[in-house]
Amino acid sequence: MKITRIKVYQVDLPLHEGSYKWSGGKSVEVFDSTVVAIETDAGFTGHGEVCPLGPFYLPAYAAGARAGVGELGPHLIGQNPTRLGPINRLMDKALQGHPYVKSALDMACWDLFGQASGQSVCELLGGRYGEDFHLYRAISQEAPEEMARKISGYREEGYRRFQLKVGGDPNEDIERIHAARAILEPTDKLVADANTGWLMHEAARVVRAVRDVDVYIEQPCAKYEENLAIRRRTDHPFVIDENIDSLA
Amino acid sequence: MKITRIKVYQVDLPLHEGSYKWSGGKSVEVFDSTVVAIETDAGFTGHGEVCPLGPFYLPAYAAGARAGVGELGPHLIGQNPTRLGPINRLMDKALQGHPYVKSALDMACWDLFGQASGQSVCELLGGRYGEDFHLYRAISQEAPEEMARKISGYREEGYRRFQLKVGGDPNEDIERIHAARAILEPTDKLVADANTGWLMHEAARVVRAVRDVDVYIEQPCAKYEENLAIRRRTDHPFVIDENIDSLA
Amino acid sequence: MKITRIKVYQVDLPLHEGSYKWSGGKSVEVFDSTVVAIETDAGFTGHGEVCPLGPFYLPAYAAGARAGVGELGPHLIGQNPTRLGPINRLMDKALQGHPYVKSALDMACWDLFGQASGQSVCELLGGRYGEDFHLYRAISQEAPEEMARKISGYREEGYRRFQLKVGGDPNEDIERIHAARAILEPTDKLVADANTGWLMHEAARVVRAVRDVDVYIEQPCAKYEENLAIRRRTDHPFVIDENIDSLA
Amino acid sequence: MKITRIKVYQVDLPLHEGSYKWSGGKSVEVFDSTVVAIETDAGFTGHGEVCPLGPFYLPAYAAGARAGVGELGPHLIGQNPTRLGPINRLMDKALQGHPYVKSALDMACWDLFGQASGQSVCELLGGRYGEDFHLYRAISQEAPEEMARKISGYREEGYRRFQLKVGGDPNEDIERIHAARAILEPTDKLVADANTGWLMHEAARVVRAVRDVDVYIEQPCAKYEENLAIRRRTDHPFVIDENIDSLA
Amino acid sequence: MKITRIKVYQVDLPLHEGSYKWSGGKSVEVFDSTVVAIETDAGFTGHGEVCPLGPFYLPAYAAGARAGVGELGPHLIGQNPTRLGPINRLMDKALQGHPYVKSALDMACWDLFGQASGQSVCELLGGRYGEDFHLYRAISQEAPEEMARKISGYREEGYRRFQLKVGGDPNEDIERIHAARAILEPTDKLVADANTGWLMHEAARVVRAVRDVDVYIEQPCAKYEENLAIRRRTDHPFVIDENIDSLA
Amino acid sequence: MKITRIKVYQVDLPLHEGSYKWSGGKSVEVFDSTVVAIETDAGFTGHGEVCPLGPFYLPAYAAGARAGVGELGPHLIGQNPTRLGPINRLMDKALQGHPYVKSALDMACWDLFGQASGQSVCELLGGRYGEDFHLYRAISQEAPEEMARKISGYREEGYRRFQLKVGGDPNEDIERIHAARAILEPTDKLVADANTGWLMHEAARVVRAVRDVDVYIEQPCAKYEENLAIRRRTDHPFVIDENIDSLA
Amino acid sequence: MKITRIKVYQVDLPLHEGSYKWSGGKSVEVFDSTVVAIETDAGFTGHGEVCPLGPFYLPAYAAGARAGVGELGPHLIGQNPTRLGPINRLMDKALQGHPYVKSALDMACWDLFGQASGQSVCELLGGRYGEDFHLYRAISQEAPEEMARKISGYREEGYRRFQLKVGGDPNEDIERIHAARAILEPTDKLVADANTGWLMHEAARVVRAVRDVDVYIEQPCAKYEENLAIRRRTDHPFVIDENIDSLA
Amino acid sequence: MKITRIKVYQVDLPLHEGSYKWSGGKSVEVFDSTVVAIETDAGFTGHGEVCPLGPFYLPAYAAGARAGVGELGPHLIGQNPTRLGPINRLMDKALQGHPYVKSALDMACWDLFGQASGQSVCELLGGRYGEDFHLYRAISQEAPEEMARKISGYREEGYRRFQLKVGGDPNEDIERIHAARAILEPTDKLVADANTGWLMHEAARVVRAVRDVDVYIEQPCAKYEENLAIRRRTDHPFVIDENIDSLA
Ligand SMILES: [Mg+2]
Ligand SMILES: [Mg+2]
Ligand SMILES: [Mg+2]
Ligand SMILES: [Mg+2]
Ligand SMILES: [Mg+2]
Ligand SMILES: [Mg+2]
Ligand SMILES: [Mg+2]
Ligand SMILES: [Mg+2]
Repeated sequence: MKITRIKVYQVDLPLHEGSYKWSGGKSVEVFDSTVVAIETDAGFTGHGEVCPLGPFYLPAYAAGARAGVGELGPHLIGQNPTRLGPINRLMDKALQGHPYVKSALDMACWDLFGQASGQSVCELLGGRYGEDFHLYRAISQEAPEEMARKISGYREEGYRRFQLKVGGDPNEDIERIHAARAILEPTDKLVADANTGWLMHEAARVVRAVRDVDVYIEQPCAKYEENLAIRRRTDHPFVIDENIDSLA
Repeated sequence: MKITRIKVYQVDLPLHEGSYKWSGGKSVEVFDSTVVAIETDAGFTGHGEVCPLGPFYLPAYAAGARAGVGELGPHLIGQNPTRLGPINRLMDKALQGHPYVKSALDMACWDLFGQASGQSVCELLGGRYGEDFHLYRAISQEAPEEMARKISGYREEGYRRFQLKVGGDPNEDIERIHAARAILEPTDKLVADANTGWLMHEAARVVRAVRDVDVYIEQPCAKYEENLAIRRRTDHPFVIDENIDSLA
Repeated sequence: MKITRIKVYQVDLPLHEGSYKWSGGKSVEVFDSTVVAIETDAGFTGHGEVCPLGPFYLPAYAAGARAGVGELGPHLIGQNPTRLGPINRLMDKALQGHPYVKSALDMACWDLFGQASGQSVCELLGGRYGEDFHLYRAISQEAPEEMARKISGYREEGYRRFQLKVGGDPNEDIERIHAARAILEPTDKLVADANTGWLMHEAARVVRAVRDVDVYIEQPCAKYEENLAIRRRTDHPFVIDENIDSLA
Repeated sequence: MKITRIKVYQVDLPLHEGSYKWSGGKSVEVFDSTVVAIETDAGFTGHGEVCPLGPFYLPAYAAGARAGVGELGPHLIGQNPTRLGPINRLMDKALQGHPYVKSALDMACWDLFGQASGQSVCELLGGRYGEDFHLYRAISQEAPEEMARKISGYREEGYRRFQLKVGGDPNEDIERIHAARAILEPTDKLVADANTGWLMHEAARVVRAVRDVDVYIEQPCAKYEENLAIRRRTDHPFVIDENIDSLA
Repeated sequence: MKITRIKVYQVDLPLHEGSYKWSGGKSVEVFDSTVVAIETDAGFTGHGEVCPLGPFYLPAYAAGARAGVGELGPHLIGQNPTRLGPINRLMDKALQGHPYVKSALDMACWDLFGQASGQSVCELLGGRYGEDFHLYRAISQEAPEEMARKISGYREEGYRRFQLKVGGDPNEDIERIHAARAILEPTDKLVADANTGWLMHEAARVVRAVRDVDVYIEQPCAKYEENLAIRRRTDHPFVIDENIDSLA
Repeated sequence: MKITRIKVYQVDLPLHEGSYKWSGGKSVEVFDSTVVAIETDAGFTGHGEVCPLGPFYLPAYAAGARAGVGELGPHLIGQNPTRLGPINRLMDKALQGHPYVKSALDMACWDLFGQASGQSVCELLGGRYGEDFHLYRAISQEAPEEMARKISGYREEGYRRFQLKVGGDPNEDIERIHAARAILEPTDKLVADANTGWLMHEAARVVRAVRDVDVYIEQPCAKYEENLAIRRRTDHPFVIDENIDSLA
Repeated sequence: MKITRIKVYQVDLPLHEGSYKWSGGKSVEVFDSTVVAIETDAGFTGHGEVCPLGPFYLPAYAAGARAGVGELGPHLIGQNPTRLGPINRLMDKALQGHPYVKSALDMACWDLFGQASGQSVCELLGGRYGEDFHLYRAISQEAPEEMARKISGYREEGYRRFQLKVGGDPNEDIERIHAARAILEPTDKLVADANTGWLMHEAARVVRAVRDVDVYIEQPCAKYEENLAIRRRTDHPFVIDENIDSLA
Repeated sequence: MKITRIKVYQVDLPLHEGSYKWSGGKSVEVFDSTVVAIETDAGFTGHGEVCPLGPFYLPAYAAGARAGVGELGPHLIGQNPTRLGPINRLMDKALQGHPYVKSALDMACWDLFGQASGQSVCELLGGRYGEDFHLYRAISQEAPEEMARKISGYREEGYRRFQLKVGGDPNEDIERIHAARAILEPTDKLVADANTGWLMHEAARVVRAVRDVDVYIEQPCAKYEENLAIRRRTDHPFVIDENIDSLA
């Protein structure tokens, strides 16, 4: 099988709730997504997508994804898309770095490999493990009582896991965590995601102030070392997110 | 697809040269191999094999492989063999350790996955990279001049990479390495594989004595820390083999 | 003294309480044990036993023990069983790894050495230290109140040390620990053994939730590094079990 | 001062010698450069340039530079370009990563700051230290004798420092280094730049083979840890290049 | 531009409150400050100042500053003061160590560079970030209730951040921290600065005794390692001051 | 000055309170002390003493001290005792290890040096710092209430610092610490000295149980690493004693 | 079995060659040895011996051994000598440190255990491995040519392994090593034992000067860290002796 | 005894050879020394001296020494100069840092202590070890042949240890070392002191180029880490000087 043509589409994804707010006053109303379609001489067409959470969440942005596909495209024409190892090695050789650019193309090649094999991609990636999984609900950053009110509403819809968007003013964030936990059952799970929004001394104050609350702390500070220092000060379960961008 | 039956075969693999000798006076004339055939309700049958280099090379032996397949077999009947991740997790849960037992079954499942997908297994494992590769020739442990003579012969057959079986008497091994290198061209590659046969002070003496010879040193001592200590004393390129038995 | 014959027996050991349950829903009704008898030209017969806690507790299983004895047996015939060092070195050379296989044979050789010396084995192993020791009682995993009830009963029989089988649902395990400690005196000892049943974030939540309870925490997670990370978050006394499988 | 407009130009830079070859058979005939011009309400226009050595030398490419300037440009309009700290913090906040994109804009802002201050940029960056410095001459990868011949020529033009492009076949590279050094005076400097072209065992062989040659070794392997391992095996002076892409 | 003359002035700076007391019974009524004026052939005169907090706070003293300027001055005459890098390298070469001596001269050169460039120094140092910032109020060491009383007064003037001078008797310092925090609002910030006044075991006792108080701990002990040990015993936010005297 | 004769005396030092009890049921009624007198040709006689706390507190015992002086004595005759460095080097060369033996002789040489110089030894050792210091009172191990009662009595005599001899049954030790602290004022100091009497898990339980008590923990376990592990679990101030036996 | 009496004997062991010289001008003509005989109520008598190489080789001396046996003896009367673990724990509890004192008593107890068991001690210690082993010959420190001459003589007697006593003047030691190796065959083994006689810079010079000689280096300097630093500078095989005085 | 007055003298010390040259073109003709005289009420006067090797060798300069004595003097009047510990603690409290200032005063106090005790200072500092010691001769930096010529001359005067002042042009320094060693006997000692004059890559080249020369390398680079890196590349004995400025 050989790649014959690559198409790229820009797609607007407006938010269901109108907007989504998180640390540092950041918010978004519409996501700018990029979809690629890889056509082959075997009649199959594979699709992939890359949709950065804006240009300031991770080193990735929508226009860059499209520019990068333009750079990589000519190298892929004529290649066998089902050989995922060689195709990725070729992409790394043709363009250093910029992994987000390659992810949409990689995804489309996996799609083609699935079609060629008559297998769903999850089987090719190691095999399907289950039939379902639990969702958690992210709570956009608002005043503490407003966030607690929303959790109550989602809880009635059946949610049992909640991710509070904190990372704003530390004093108010302490109130957010207390207010949210107060309306939950002991078996519910609460995560406070600061999205790198706290300085180290602010994070240190927050984890002390919620020392007796059953809550997970997510990505309090920007740098890995800062988060490590905070984790060593507290016995809260901990989640790292923005700092985990490779398997290295 | 579901596994319906698993067959196990014992197979004798006699050596072409009659025997093969390496460190510590070890030698072998016939390898005791085990082949498994996994039958499915989809009409496919997958094959796998496990053939330990005797019970003293790595923690694995032929009768143990067959006993282990007997232990694991009942757990596999009725499972989907193409889901490699879940099938391996099930094997690990049913029987801790004993990875060599699982390798033949894992191999047969990959074979079935290949048949079900219409793909060769190398494509499913990441994609084929090339069409061919160079072989090296292992030289069974003999007197230095005899080993050099054999290398000459194999060189005429076209071989350019040679693995000397050393790990015997250190003084004689020093002669083996000098004799072998003497009849090679600069672009040929020579590896001296001690197969854990040297004590640390013996290995230290050997690498000093061949300080000016273009040779790779392979697995001089038994423990990883011993090999590390030897590697730090020398600037020869180094190969570790028996110590590398997992990806951990 | 020389070994003349080795016999191997399979023995069923049914549980007094009918069944025993622990982490991850694991349970057992009958243990499959293996007994070896080593006969010698001196008229002594030594006995040893290996009884894995099922194939999923440690890398050991009953059928593998018997296959391994079959592999090792021929190497031992004619050897002096009272030379424990050389006999174990011979076993390690004849079969790499599989220490559980060798343990029953090693045990039988110690038995023979004891008979030949007119000494009990504990004297040969370094000398007897005392006349007696305290037993603890393992409490099979049930609902919290049921486990507390059983502890009350065993306490009346005179037990003062209890090992709770936890490692199930973390929320319920928190209740188990609180319920068990509530009916104990301050000088009694309580250990909560998760048998690797918790993920790290679950273990982190449990030790926080029992922060003020006088309880030992045993083997919360599967990997050594995970347990180390949990131990560093808490000041509870700690016990490691499944991770300690050698003196290295 | 405020930024009022940003212009971007694409520029072709053909090579004086026609082509330039280095490790892995890579070569280039024309560099694709990007020049930005930042216009201000103060009448000054600042210029900056970014010219990646192709898309495969570092994580940077010409089209990506231009796409990135398009992303960043709107954020810069109306800002004071002479405030280099705030302007860079704004760029980092508006677009994570992609430092090569920002470098051309940063450069143009420094140019504006220099014009506004009546200072050359080198004075603003810490102060000019000298009046002149020595150039070294890179020698495009050819056959050993051809490279030695070119060095002779450049030496007659007055060059005294030479950077050999190696990183090809290790046996031939060994010859290149010997041939080049042979025609130099003791006080001349020779650097062998592999541009990440060697695997670790190849690099280990090369540094052994030139053990007695007065030569610097530059960037033998791709990863920092690989280069570190090679450096620890040799006492040659060492240069790292591709691995040094930040001050972190 | 060239330096033509350097003048040095001694200046007395009496304290507004009459005196200032901190750890170990140290206090001061008048600061002995040194001002330098660098004159140039361009008509500009630059000013700098160095005012040690007495000779016992850091390795710096007023008379030494003036002696050092006398040593350095002759080396600076005729130099270009706007080349900050070369000028500092020259000072380091002319006089090792004694960085406080150089700071006043460095400051005056920056002043000259600002005048020559028509830029304020903060622009030359990286660019101005904001228009204003919050002040904290240091509270001279008195009896606990007296310090609390002063905080109340300053709070009415609008202060919201307070630095308690502790580092005296540990039992009294515990009272000082409790008394000060008691009269503050949750969003106010309190820092307890011991100015190296505690021995390690005293610091350990204090941080335990204020375990539930929202307070920052500043420089409890003299040596960095001592402070590190204390920080590892507590989850209070931490400030280091006297130990941070370079960027190395 | 030269040493002409060395005399050794055995001295019994009975305890004022009759007996002294500490961890592990150890107790003592009379100390066996050794006094040496070094005579010189200058008419001065210097005295030194070594009095081990029994043979089981540190590696030192009374008879060994006397045997060692016998070994060293002949080497010292004729030497200049005021040259402390050379005299100690000579002792170390004449007899490896056994520092307690040398301490009495070293002490007597210092005494002679003091007499020869007309200086008290504290001046020769660096200079006297003060005129007086606080004593603490060790409380022999008894039942908790009895130890509290004794503290009350000593407190009336003016003592303010107390060292509880714990290191017995951990449950009882917890009571000892609570009882002792209960009758003290906040500014009094309490140290709980286990004299290596606890196993690690016992020490972990004790420090948890007195988590809110203002008490120093002294030498809980035998090995340095054990004590370090306990210290890392607690924020109590810590004292190490038996493990600190050199300046290395 | 119980210990009823312990006898101690002093024994003179004169040297066969008259004297033995090693590093630092140390030499000995007669060794002062101590033999203990432990008598039991079972009729067996066990013997042990301790013979320090003078008081300056390790922390042990003959008179100290006899004093220590006097201290320990009363604790052993009535004990069961065949319980080696408890008997050693009792000795460690009765007298801290002084392991050389305990070694003679421990040896005698092993002797008794052997007699009681009808086993030779080597069997009780783990089992006999072989029937014979090679001796090496220590060469007392003389002029280089004299030492070479002695090696020649011993070589004719059949010795093939030689330990040169160096550790004297480094320049002369370099000659000793060259002279000794010159008269040996390649398969003979030569060890240069400095017995801690070199300072670090002297050891560094020696190993450089014999860089191309096939020789083992033994205990060049006094401290472990010094020897480690020397080992890292050289690729000679290395032996540590005086620094290895425990299994810790 | 009490200090009643402190006098300070400036003294010129011209060089015997006229001038002394070392790394980086540094040279000196006259040393500017400072002598202090401490007078006491006991009639004794103690003298001390501080003579920095110019202001650029270490952080110390002559005028600073005199200014510092002026700062410290008033604190010392009335103090007992024979209490060296308290007097130094007082100086550290009165003036942080500036240890060179304190050294002359400390020296004068030792002098007074010696007078008061009737002991020479070397006895008070630990005792005199020997009667004499070897001097080495520093060779001022000149052309290689000139330095070799001077060594010849000094050798005839009886010198056997030489310190070459290198740290200039690396190519010339290589010649200096070769030329100097060429005229020495094997038992003579040669040290090449670069006085921090080489960059790391220069030092790496030099030690490679003198790989087979018996020479010590002293202080090749400025920073400790640089010197450490060079030491790890070479097996030359090594000396650190400028980096060793405290006992910490
Ligand atoms: Mg997140
Ligand atoms: Mg191999
Ligand atoms: Mg367990
Ligand atoms: Mg390069
Ligand atoms: Mg401060
Ligand atoms: Mg104590
Ligand atoms: Mg030895
Ligand atoms: Mg020097």
